[in-house]
Amino acid sequence: MSIDLPSRPFGYEPVPEEGPFGDDPAFPLHRGGKIEVRPTVRVRDNAGLALAYTPGVGRVSQAIADDPALGWELTWRSNSVLIVTDGSAVLGLGEIGPVAALPVMEGKSLLFKEFGGIDCVPICLDTMDVDTIVETVAMISPAYGGINLEDISAPRCFEIERRLQERLDIPVFHDDQHGTAVVVTAALRNAARLTGREIAGMKVVISGAGAAGVAIADMLLAAGIGDLLVCDRAGILHVDRDGLNDVKLGLARRTNAGAARGDIASALEGADVLIGVSGGTIDGSAIARMAADPIVFALANPIPEVLPEVAHAAGARVVATGRSDFPNQINNVLAFPGIFRGALDVGATRITEGMKLAAAGAIADLVGDDLAPDCIVPDPFHPQLASSVAEAVKRAAVRDGVIR
Amino acid sequence: MSIDLPSRPFGYEPVPEEGPFGDDPAFPLHRGGKIEVRPTVRVRDNAGLALAYTPGVGRVSQAIADDPALGWELTWRSNSVLIVTDGSAVLGLGEIGPVAALPVMEGKSLLFKEFGGIDCVPICLDTMDVDTIVETVAMISPAYGGINLEDISAPRCFEIERRLQERLDIPVFHDDQHGTAVVVTAALRNAARLTGREIAGMKVVISGAGAAGVAIADMLLAAGIGDLLVCDRAGILHVDRDGLNDVKLGLARRTNAGAARGDIASALEGADVLIGVSGGTIDGSAIARMAADPIVFALANPIPEVLPEVAHAAGARVVATGRSDFPNQINNVLAFPGIFRGALDVGATRITEGMKLAAAGAIADLVGDDLAPDCIVPDPFHPQLASSVAEAVKRAAVRDGVIR
Repeated sequence: MSIDLPSRPFGYEPVPEEGPFGDDPAFPLHRGGKIEVRPTVRVRDNAGLALAYTPGVGRVSQAIADDPALGWELTWRSNSVLIVTDGSAVLGLGEIGPVAALPVMEGKSLLFKEFGGIDCVPICLDTMDVDTIVETVAMISPAYGGINLEDISAPRCFEIERRLQERLDIPVFHDDQHGTAVVVTAALRNAARLTGREIAGMKVVISGAGAAGVAIADMLLAAGIGDLLVCDRAGILHVDRDGLNDVKLGLARRTNAGAARGDIASALEGADVLIGVSGGTIDGSAIARMAADPIVFALANPIPEVLPEVAHAAGARVVATGRSDFPNQINNVLAFPGIFRGALDVGATRITEGMKLAAAGAIADLVGDDLAPDCIVPDPFHPQLASSVAEAVKRAAVRDGVIR
Repeated sequence: MSIDLPSRPFGYEPVPEEGPFGDDPAFPLHRGGKIEVRPTVRVRDNAGLALAYTPGVGRVSQAIADDPALGWELTWRSNSVLIVTDGSAVLGLGEIGPVAALPVMEGKSLLFKEFGGIDCVPICLDTMDVDTIVETVAMISPAYGGINLEDISAPRCFEIERRLQERLDIPVFHDDQHGTAVVVTAALRNAARLTGREIAGMKVVISGAGAAGVAIADMLLAAGIGDLLVCDRAGILHVDRDGLNDVKLGLARRTNAGAARGDIASALEGADVLIGVSGGTIDGSAIARMAADPIVFALANPIPEVLPEVAHAAGARVVATGRSDFPNQINNVLAFPGIFRGALDVGATRITEGMKLAAAGAIADLVGDDLAPDCIVPDPFHPQLASSVAEAVKRAAVRDGVIR
């Protein structure tokens, strides 16, 4: 998994340029894009051509035609992933379309390679139709070992992921859901340890019932959280609420055993944990009415639901955000490179809840003795991060029997 | 266009391995595939993450959303091409399916980068339905600057290319057609010069009316050949022949002004040039009945329609094949890297006949004073090849007014 990177044509602290973008160094860094496709074998002469291309390549193709399993050995497929978006929910920018989404997909490809050694191709779809997306991705899947869905809006993302995974024998993973859920679970495990709580005994409130909120809820249920409320803009989800879509209704059934009703502030009364993935605003006064030493994850970007200083002033013991300029950044890059590294290396056909929980455990464990209120997750550049996650994911895949 | 390649993990003369593939060095060379996706910017710390990924990338995406033309500047799109196959006509192997086609597509990507500096992504489609192929490729096109169709069987390839090019504002190029036609035209120009012929005055016979045969015929017509016959397995195409599909009927109308009928041997009577792209067999006796000093291109792979020694014995003055172990290899790698390099650099929306003719001229010119019966095309490793072709293609694109 070591990566031999080329000397890069651009630095990441490039000289600011004159022009329409002012002195923002992000623009010169992005000129010409951030990724490339390169040979791993070098062809210097006709003898090389005759092996890497015709006629040599024909013998390899014929061998795969005769025994399709050889496709995993004799092509890049065992290490390649499609990063697929429709540009409908890009970062906090919303529906900006496929071309405008491309810099984000290139960035994701860069992170997959840098942290996981995985070859990722950006696919920016010129459609937002669910049927067309499923068909298109299925059609282009044969050259790839996995599908990472990215920045696709809810509730479409749930159906797209489910239908693709039913159809394909390679992992399909919507990172905005599961990557976030894995890192939140890891962080929550460490925050609970720090505040002397048991996972099973906590009351958790999730603010937001989109892609991330739904996935976090399901993962926390799988992790053993018993008392869980999910709120959207209209308040707490409960089974008798009018106008819930299928996803929210299902979520209401799996959570809120006490049939609570009300707004986010009432949900937070006596709660141990707030997980904000909504982009709304939560007052310090609501934080103040949580249980003693509460845990507050305010993950909306770029503006957290409650700023760390406000949360701390209201009594929060541990605060995490999605931002790199505050402590405890909940960053998917902690999870997805290792998860896919493990899934590809073991030949997994899907990514199970067990594999995600194993990844969360590995991430949490890496913090070790550094555990502190401002250190509940490891640094993304921790040298053992991806390999530890990958090992845990591989073991879980074997346990769950999802090996090709 | 200079390419800084990494140290390669495999050599192209690797140590033969024990095992099911015997001592064929093509197999260890292909293990794990031949290409990778790598960052061109390096992210070493959180400051780098904050520029190449969130939040910096969000400012770039927003700028593109506000002004879509910036997508060409601030992503890899101005240098990226999709290599698309359905696995229906792979090399001489026929319909071997998408996964078995992947080594060939990886090889093509390798050649595009090595010779043209272009980033190419393999797409192996899990369908052979024309409508589905057109829809799928259109849907995934927004992140790419061009489409190279590859190893798609005739006559489907004609409709797929036409419909995609009508729909998209980026070049769509079926290399088995046009790449072959460009190199054949270049080689024929030099063979004519060598044998003291004028292009316009030659009688040319094409054996084969598939993807390559049709494209060669059209390009030679555009180059000014007047007397042209095309034969398929049933003999010379003429407008009164029963059972011709639309493509062959159109070809019959554009060629065979004298309404000739008969088999390939009768077509060759007195002909100056034979271009074989059929895979059939042509006897030396038929070559012997051509005009004096005939030109014979026997391009079927791996077995030419007539072997060079047989053709020479029958009087052929200049012989070319598709093989690297005979002189005068007609190899598409002479054309496609430079054609796409020029098209991408100038922002072309399509690749016109004028651009292809310009490419053929540039390829032919590179032979220069080395021109000889066993040297009518340049070496694929000629250091000025791709750049010369690219410059000619750019000028022709400007002339033809097909700039974005």
